[in-house]
Amino acid sequence: MNINHNIQFNDDKKLIHFLNIQNLSAQQILEILELADTVKSKSLDGKTVASLFFEPSTRTKTTFELAAKRLGVDFINIDIANSSTSKGESIVDMIKTLEAMQCNMFVVRHSTSGIPHYIAEQVGNKISVINAGDGAHAHPTQAMLDMYTIKKYKTNFKDLNVAIVGDILHSRVAKSLITSLNILRVKNINIVGPKNLMPENIDELNVIYSDKLEEGIDQADVIIMLRLQKERMREALISTDDYYKEFGLTKNKIKSAKKDVIVMHPGPINRGIEIDSDVADGPNSVILDQVSAGISIRMAIMSLILKNKS
Amino acid sequence: MNINHNIQFNDDKKLIHFLNIQNLSAQQILEILELADTVKSKSLDGKTVASLFFEPSTRTKTTFELAAKRLGVDFINIDIANSSTSKGESIVDMIKTLEAMQCNMFVVRHSTSGIPHYIAEQVGNKISVINAGDGAHAHPTQAMLDMYTIKKYKTNFKDLNVAIVGDILHSRVAKSLITSLNILRVKNINIVGPKNLMPENIDELNVIYSDKLEEGIDQADVIIMLRLQKERMREALISTDDYYKEFGLTKNKIKSAKKDVIVMHPGPINRGIEIDSDVADGPNSVILDQVSAGISIRMAIMSLILKNKS
Amino acid sequence: MNINHNIQFNDDKKLIHFLNIQNLSAQQILEILELADTVKSKSLDGKTVASLFFEPSTRTKTTFELAAKRLGVDFINIDIANSSTSKGESIVDMIKTLEAMQCNMFVVRHSTSGIPHYIAEQVGNKISVINAGDGAHAHPTQAMLDMYTIKKYKTNFKDLNVAIVGDILHSRVAKSLITSLNILRVKNINIVGPKNLMPENIDELNVIYSDKLEEGIDQADVIIMLRLQKERMREALISTDDYYKEFGLTKNKIKSAKKDVIVMHPGPINRGIEIDSDVADGPNSVILDQVSAGISIRMAIMSLILKNKS
Repeated sequence: MNINHNIQFNDDKKLIHFLNIQNLSAQQILEILELADTVKSKSLDGKTVASLFFEPSTRTKTTFELAAKRLGVDFINIDIANSSTSKGESIVDMIKTLEAMQCNMFVVRHSTSGIPHYIAEQVGNKISVINAGDGAHAHPTQAMLDMYTIKKYKTNFKDLNVAIVGDILHSRVAKSLITSLNILRVKNINIVGPKNLMPENIDELNVIYSDKLEEGIDQADVIIMLRLQKERMREALISTDDYYKEFGLTKNKIKSAKKDVIVMHPGPINRGIEIDSDVADGPNSVILDQVSAGISIRMAIMSLILKNKS
Repeated sequence: MNINHNIQFNDDKKLIHFLNIQNLSAQQILEILELADTVKSKSLDGKTVASLFFEPSTRTKTTFELAAKRLGVDFINIDIANSSTSKGESIVDMIKTLEAMQCNMFVVRHSTSGIPHYIAEQVGNKISVINAGDGAHAHPTQAMLDMYTIKKYKTNFKDLNVAIVGDILHSRVAKSLITSLNILRVKNINIVGPKNLMPENIDELNVIYSDKLEEGIDQADVIIMLRLQKERMREALISTDDYYKEFGLTKNKIKSAKKDVIVMHPGPINRGIEIDSDVADGPNSVILDQVSAGISIRMAIMSLILKNKS
Repeated sequence: MNINHNIQFNDDKKLIHFLNIQNLSAQQILEILELADTVKSKSLDGKTVASLFFEPSTRTKTTFELAAKRLGVDFINIDIANSSTSKGESIVDMIKTLEAMQCNMFVVRHSTSGIPHYIAEQVGNKISVINAGDGAHAHPTQAMLDMYTIKKYKTNFKDLNVAIVGDILHSRVAKSLITSLNILRVKNINIVGPKNLMPENIDELNVIYSDKLEEGIDQADVIIMLRLQKERMREALISTDDYYKEFGLTKNKIKSAKKDVIVMHPGPINRGIEIDSDVADGPNSVILDQVSAGISIRMAIMSLILKNKS
């Protein structure tokens, strides 16, 4: 699917959909991070948001639902498994129907890359679309909450050494993170993991690759661990034991990083596989800050694009 | 089941349940259509509405949920599949329990005709019941939103030629439509479809039957296509291909109707079976207007009967 | 699991979790019963309550949801079956995540005794936990709504003969009831049922056991019937027919009790097994009062512990 990246802006270059990080400027990102601190609850009273999770999720879905409710919107969970889409209705017919019910926003997760963009192309000019994760393509609200969390602990993006560890190839989180960190011009982006779980276009990403954890996180200010997907490990012919031995973040290995390094993880954590409990619950972990940031950032994004739409 | 049609009025002849169209006067119908334009949001703050969908549905259920939320009520979805009814509790015990929780209204869909009436007979005098579709009996809120949509486009019900196309025999939508259109005294009601999908009491319905699409929609002001149910086609020994050839509404066939004919469909659409995409998305289609009308009409009906109850 | 009963109080001896009845004083119980009459709707606006039902339930879950909505909180139903807990995430990680989303209260039902206590031990000092039923251990909000119902009909707890009939051994409801009634110093607590469905520590419970229904309910002011679980009957080698014959409450048997006896049941009822319809729907039944009481009592408890927390 050819993904159109310009659709998320209106003629005044204002954000009206939130589909990916690409094409955002550093200033636009920073403005959203600031908005997350000031967005008012109940400020979207009278609006309607529909959540369309074609792929299951607890964390992201619950965070969007809470963010929406705190903004005072009428929130509708579409039960996809029992919906008419499962009886053969097309996605377009489904969203046209929801649009006719005067929904103002769709929050879309789908296992196929590009579906949120496709939906954004189909909706009329009164509806905004948020990408809550599409295939291996992007997870832009996750990247934004991660930037918010980094900004909370580090004074300046430009001086940072950031390491991202795990299956970069299949991770939409990793892709949105690399894009964000490049836009914010961090000093070094290190990616770490087994060679066969790295993307082919690695040279175009402005990252430094290492297949050794301690090398990749050397002098790191920020370490972002990715969730290991067991199916992917089997495909890559790596056992979880071997993965843990080589790439699992432990109290001992973390010593290569800076003393005040922050450790992040999008959750849910596989304790003892990609990360040790000592680290996940230790003084460097900001994993629960990320969860809290998820609420504020999503309130900010919903608020911003709905304001720009109207 | 012997269905009592008078239960929906109180001693002052005011509507307190919305169970079917039968026994409503033309004036009562028209008043509800008008109320749909003026009903205020948040006007039922503090009331509680419980949704009891014993039969799955996305469109109708979502529309009721949105209508209720816009009226400001506390809305509760009863998860029938996991409810105590599925463990042997009777429907009466279930509704008595919900009534004791101070619910003010039940929205009921059931695959058996008459269940909403039965529930209305059981509830105390503080609860209103809305029929959201029962068996092959009635779907009165669908008929009301269809009348609202017709009124939006046509000046006068009395001069209209209306055609209803499809499986009239099994369609609760068709039955409620025929009743409504007769009460509003439209000039002609044409019903079109295979002979073995027509009701036996066709002579009592004040309709004109045709087994040819172009004849049935000749000079039509309004064409209402019904959703084809594949199981029913098999029972009637008609293939979907043959059905489409004879009764599918195409750009070409629609030429028999008036130029400003409106085309309606309760949704979800089977594109290329009962209706072509050219027509469904074409200039005569008001299918998405019907969806929007569904919100306003249901807000109006909920508001009206709750007001009359108290 | 060793269940810590003191965790529900803060340093000022105020209730901050509602986990069981044990350790409450008679005065504390009576104050909650009074609060149930005066608790204001929308008084918890801006708070967030998450419902974690690891064991299915309609009645209790719906009542909590309605109570929460009437208090004006943002209410979130966590879909446990599809949650990351089902994918191996620990309960602790799940609640830490919800806590980071700024939830203020968890309502927890679990088939294992002690889980709500365990969760209360893990949460930070901004979160309250309510036990909505854990294993065979306790169901304290049910006991409270039953006390509320008794108080509505009877002037004085101290003079009452109360009978509890059924499978005491496996019933968390029975356990919380016996604790409550003892704290309120009712005159006699009679427990009735097959010997092999009685707890081993019967001598420590301050109750009188009878294996004959008419003896156990003799001169009773209050009869509380428990729901018969068919699996338990099979384990106890009793057929439902035999059970009904010996312990089913009928119009005839109820004559042993006082004329103004009230008959209670936590629901859903097995009509014709543990109770006859004549009795369940008869003049002595207050079963639907119990349902109504469930809303007020849960509003009171949520309101109280959230106020004490902050």
